[in-house]
Amino acid sequence: MTTPTRTRMSDARRGELLDAVLSVLREVGYDALTMDAVAARARTSKATLYRQWEGKPGLVVEALRHGAPAPAPTPDTGSLRGDLLAMVEHDSGQRAAKTAEDTLLVQSLIQAMITDAELRTLVREHLLAPGMARLHVVLNQAIARGEVAPDCPALPYVGQLLIMFGLGHSLLSDESDVPDFPAFLDSVVVPLLISTKI
Amino acid sequence: MTTPTRTRMSDARRGELLDAVLSVLREVGYDALTMDAVAARARTSKATLYRQWEGKPGLVVEALRHGAPAPAPTPDTGSLRGDLLAMVEHDSGQRAAKTAEDTLLVQSLIQAMITDAELRTLVREHLLAPGMARLHVVLNQAIARGEVAPDCPALPYVGQLLIMFGLGHSLLSDESDVPDFPAFLDSVVVPLLISTKI
Repeated sequence: MTTPTRTRMSDARRGELLDAVLSVLREVGYDALTMDAVAARARTSKATLYRQWEGKPGLVVEALRHGAPAPAPTPDTGSLRGDLLAMVEHDSGQRAAKTAEDTLLVQSLIQAMITDAELRTLVREHLLAPGMARLHVVLNQAIARGEVAPDCPALPYVGQLLIMFGLGHSLLSDESDVPDFPAFLDSVVVPLLISTKI
Repeated sequence: MTTPTRTRMSDARRGELLDAVLSVLREVGYDALTMDAVAARARTSKATLYRQWEGKPGLVVEALRHGAPAPAPTPDTGSLRGDLLAMVEHDSGQRAAKTAEDTLLVQSLIQAMITDAELRTLVREHLLAPGMARLHVVLNQAIARGEVAPDCPALPYVGQLLIMFGLGHSLLSDESDVPDFPAFLDSVVVPLLISTKI
C-alpha cells in the first residue's frame, strides 16, 4: 500500500540527489549540466527530478545551498573595517579549501547568470541574500556606532561593490595581478562610508 | 605574375571580412561563432582568416574595434561630475542606437571573457584602453582643478567601478530596476574622489 509519506522524498535521499547535482556541476559546469546526467548519477529518473524541482536553475541553486558551509556568525569587532574584513576573511578561508573544479563551477554559474534571468533571481534570493543580510547588520552596527551616517548615499551600493570586486578584478586586471581585497576596502569601501561629518 | 601587393589584403577587403565577423557575431554570439561561418559569410577561406589573424579572439576583437564608432572628444566641462556624465552620456547615446542583437553580442563576449584569458587581454588592450585613457585625462583635469587629491587612494579603482556598474546591476538587481548611472556617480564615484581636504 502506498502511504502518503512515500510520495515525499526523505531528507537523506534528497541530500543524495543534491550531492549528485554538485558532482556533475563540478565536472561539466552549469551550461553542460543536463537533467539526464543528474538522473543517471543519482540513479533516479528525470521525472522524479522534475517532480521535486521545477527545472535546472532551481535544482542547481538548491544543490549549491545544500553544499554551502554553515554561515559564519555576523562579526562585531567594534569597527566597520574590522567587520568587513572579518566577513571577507571567513569567505576567503572557505574559498582556499576549494579546488579548480569549484572555479569552473563558479565561472560557469556567472556565465549562465548573464543570460538567464530565472537563474539570476534564484541565485540572488537563495545564495546571495544571507550574505547581504549579514552585511546589512554590519552596516547598521556602524551606523549605531556613529561611524557611518544613516543617510550615507553609498549605503545601497555597498553589497554590489563587494560582490563585484572579484569579478571586476578577474575581467579587467592583468593575470599576474592578485586581487587585494583589504586594499579595496581601505581605498574605496571604508572611505566611501566613514562619515567625517558626525 | 604574383606581385608582392597581392599578398597583402586591401583595406576595403579587410573591412568586408571584419563586417562579416560582426554580422555572424550578432547572429550567434561569441561562443557559437566559428571561423568556418565567418569564411562562408565573407566568401573567403579559413586559411586566409588564419593568415591575417592568429585566431578567433584576435579576429573578433579587431572586428569590434573596426565596428566601433569614432571616439568622442575627451570632455572638459569644468567639473569632474560633468566630465564623467558627458563620457557616460556619449556612450549611452551610442548604446541607444543598438539592437537586441548587440545585447547578445555584448553578453556573449562577457561570458567568453570569464574563461578566456587571451580574449580578456585583447579586449582590455584594444577595446577598453581608449576609454581608460580618456578617463585618465578627465581625472587629471580634476586633480589640476584641485577637485581630487593627487594621492586619492580610490583613483586606481575608478575605471573598474565605472565599467562594472552595468554588469553588477544586471546580475544583482531586480529585472524591473533600471540602472541609474547618474545616481551611481553622485552616490559613489564623485563622493569617493572629491577631496574635502584641499
